[in-house]
Amino acid sequence: MASNKPNKLKARLPRGLADHGPAELSATREMIEKIRTAYERYGFEAVETPAIEYTDVLGKFLPDQDRPNEGVFSFQDDDEQWLSLRYDLTAPLARYVAENFDTLSKPYRSYRYGWVFRNEKPGPGRYRQFMQFDADTVGASSVAADAEMCMMAADTMEALGVARGNYVIKISNRKMLDGLMETIGLGGDDKVSRRLTVLRAIDKFDRLGREGVEQLLGKGRKDASGDFTKGAGLSEGDVKFILGFVAPSEGTMNVSSNKGGSDILLALPKDAFELTKNPRFKEGASELREMKKLVEAAGFGTDRILFDQTVVRGLEYYTGPVFEADLTFKIEDDRGNPIRFGSVGGGGRYDGLIARFRGEPVPATGFSIGVSRLLAALEYLGKIGAQVESGPVVVTVFDKDRIADYQKMVATLRNAGIRAELYLGTGKMGPQLKYADKRNAPCVVIQGGDEKAKGEVQIKDLILGAKAAEEIASNKEWREGRPAQFSVKEAELVQAVREVLARHGIKGGH
Amino acid sequence: MASNKPNKLKARLPRGLADHGPAELSATREMIEKIRTAYERYGFEAVETPAIEYTDVLGKFLPDQDRPNEGVFSFQDDDEQWLSLRYDLTAPLARYVAENFDTLSKPYRSYRYGWVFRNEKPGPGRYRQFMQFDADTVGASSVAADAEMCMMAADTMEALGVARGNYVIKISNRKMLDGLMETIGLGGDDKVSRRLTVLRAIDKFDRLGREGVEQLLGKGRKDASGDFTKGAGLSEGDVKFILGFVAPSEGTMNVSSNKGGSDILLALPKDAFELTKNPRFKEGASELREMKKLVEAAGFGTDRILFDQTVVRGLEYYTGPVFEADLTFKIEDDRGNPIRFGSVGGGGRYDGLIARFRGEPVPATGFSIGVSRLLAALEYLGKIGAQVESGPVVVTVFDKDRIADYQKMVATLRNAGIRAELYLGTGKMGPQLKYADKRNAPCVVIQGGDEKAKGEVQIKDLILGAKAAEEIASNKEWREGRPAQFSVKEAELVQAVREVLARHGIKGGH
Repeated sequence: MASNKPNKLKARLPRGLADHGPAELSATREMIEKIRTAYERYGFEAVETPAIEYTDVLGKFLPDQDRPNEGVFSFQDDDEQWLSLRYDLTAPLARYVAENFDTLSKPYRSYRYGWVFRNEKPGPGRYRQFMQFDADTVGASSVAADAEMCMMAADTMEALGVARGNYVIKISNRKMLDGLMETIGLGGDDKVSRRLTVLRAIDKFDRLGREGVEQLLGKGRKDASGDFTKGAGLSEGDVKFILGFVAPSEGTMNVSSNKGGSDILLALPKDAFELTKNPRFKEGASELREMKKLVEAAGFGTDRILFDQTVVRGLEYYTGPVFEADLTFKIEDDRGNPIRFGSVGGGGRYDGLIARFRGEPVPATGFSIGVSRLLAALEYLGKIGAQVESGPVVVTVFDKDRIADYQKMVATLRNAGIRAELYLGTGKMGPQLKYADKRNAPCVVIQGGDEKAKGEVQIKDLILGAKAAEEIASNKEWREGRPAQFSVKEAELVQAVREVLARHGIKGGH
Repeated sequence: MASNKPNKLKARLPRGLADHGPAELSATREMIEKIRTAYERYGFEAVETPAIEYTDVLGKFLPDQDRPNEGVFSFQDDDEQWLSLRYDLTAPLARYVAENFDTLSKPYRSYRYGWVFRNEKPGPGRYRQFMQFDADTVGASSVAADAEMCMMAADTMEALGVARGNYVIKISNRKMLDGLMETIGLGGDDKVSRRLTVLRAIDKFDRLGREGVEQLLGKGRKDASGDFTKGAGLSEGDVKFILGFVAPSEGTMNVSSNKGGSDILLALPKDAFELTKNPRFKEGASELREMKKLVEAAGFGTDRILFDQTVVRGLEYYTGPVFEADLTFKIEDDRGNPIRFGSVGGGGRYDGLIARFRGEPVPATGFSIGVSRLLAALEYLGKIGAQVESGPVVVTVFDKDRIADYQKMVATLRNAGIRAELYLGTGKMGPQLKYADKRNAPCVVIQGGDEKAKGEVQIKDLILGAKAAEEIASNKEWREGRPAQFSVKEAELVQAVREVLARHGIKGGH
């Protein structure tokens, strides 16, 4: 091995990829268990697919196409067929359902979580590998399935500790948007690409506001950095027409009695002149009304689930109701700038995705949580990962020749169910104690020659010791008493360590 | 979307990749939690790295090179640098440690689990994506760290329910093997490849026995299917010399007082003539003696950890102690053929791997469990995944116009902490009950017009119902009593369902 070559290799990660430490992993695990419990309560069962699929099976439905391979990592198999890393968990599920169609009970409710990969330009908070947690119902054409997804999303937010009022599930319907497109002459299979440009402009309403969307629907928009994004090139009249739906406060086409749009679901467009003639729009609006009825019957008010006509969802495969889980609370960063978490999940109905394999439509709807983004939000809220976990008890090595004796002590502690380790480095006592501190050890065990002769061990309570150190200047007697360090008989090691753990509320032993 | 194209897409997975259903996932989760608990008790902390790394960072240490890219999935980034999917969890850990060397407390103990990928020829039980669970100690040159890995491996097997006597941790030392190679003139950097061929022949002793290894050390071996594997081409004398170490019962060079080799650790080679003069061999043997002292002090006998000179481990990067966790119990398949699980994990010391980045040796040792293979073994042992999990309560749809009412019942059950779902399909009562059966639902809730008028719901206990059906012929009265189906007031729904769940020992409610 090239251990002494002058040109040593640089240890580095490709951009947009990240390592994860113990605190983050523990918080993620806690979060995943809560989501899993919520999804299972809704009757979903687990299924997982591999990270690699045939490229043609995954299809190309990603919103951003600023990269070769359209945002997907691809490579050839040895039989020259193209393989890709999955970019979401929906396309592989569609393959799984199509492949096992006859043996699955339908409607088929399933959930899964795992890493997905996007070959996109990485940026702050934007990774090329990230985790999603999805639930899908396949084989149910009723919007009751979509309504349930929204209710489950709301319940999941609360199970994770996000208080009512701090989140909202926003819903809309792609059919209404399709109707809108048809009305301005953007219907038909040959206008897919232009339609997507318009939809993605609407999708940015939250971030860019009315003016930004207006520019993106028209000639284009220059952002703060000077970068220019080409617009959809719609006429002034069409732009106004669309904005009348997206931002009804402007007045051209008030689709609701509610100016703010927040509970527009209460009074869906009956009087919006041109749109209401469009059958697609009417169908979408009618589906929304049905969803509203169902979520209300189940006790979900507009404080939790509401209509928002700016919800689009970027993926191309949606065909009906679309929804988004938004965090609505506002917080500030260290410099006092407001931080907006926004969307932490979303989904919708995709009746055409499985049809690619089956040759017949298979209704399906799903919801996907962006685990990493939600985790960051929960950490800000202090809902997760707040407690620092205690480290193991460290048995120090006072005398290198007696390492087998120390190893025996470690084994004794472990057999009693206590997290413990032998110091395995080469440092003397100073570095060993420093190591134990860094590991968050609640206490260390020491046995020098004197103790050995008396059949005793010393235990040093590091937590109490740290407190004592703070008070040392003003409390000489306390220091001299040294309650943080004491000797016990070897046979009482487990008992004594258990007392130290109990003193600090740390679990140890069965 | 191409939903009606005549050439529809085939739903299929690339070879060597697999989907995972709910029973397997639940068993895997249970298993992972047990391993995690065992590793944490030994003082290891979690860290995870991404699935993608720079190709040069991972290096090329895989045993099988029967494929292009030497068994690794690789692709180019947009800046033309080569990326690869990780083929194990050790090479990425080496990168992580090198990258964060100054901030990590050392010795650094960490664990991680996750998918790894190998672009190899798939076969029965041999996948191109599989899960590993690793623990590593970096920065400890003492064999106390290796001894600890072996003890942890043994404790983990027992934590997973594998009884003492049904597993064994076998250890050897690459330095002894290096000494063996030097003695027959295969030392030096220019003979790496020939050395590996010899080592891999020895590694196959378990599977091929003495004769097979003898052929692989010599001219080569033809297997049952007629495939020929080229041998190492050693002289007859050298083959005999090596076999004298690997299979000492032959007598040329008895390295132990124990013919079976099983507790050779008790009396390591002091009288093996030529080998004992080799300094590398002596160093390896001395390390093994030290390990033996430590594991014995901690209470681990040769029924759990023992020396086995045929242990090699295939990976190129090992430099000292190597170890392997073997399942030793014998079982038979459906046809009565014996099934041997063999190695379910292994590891060793790799002092050179991090040195590739640091330019100075960094001692390290690790142990890796093959999660999928171990899972299969535990399932055979009946130690995991035996119990079928109960499905959700299914609220049926008797009257499609009253779906909102049914949805409300589902919400009521869920709010009480009971797994429940609304039937979302289009079937009538027959198919709905069949669906509930297939989902393992403990009971279904039914409300027709009559019940509605009386403010009641019917509950059908499917588990009791199935039992009753079995006894139906001989027990007419019982059938007429219909204890499996009863009506309650709507307000008593939760209480009644809880009673059914309790009747069958199913958890429900908080």
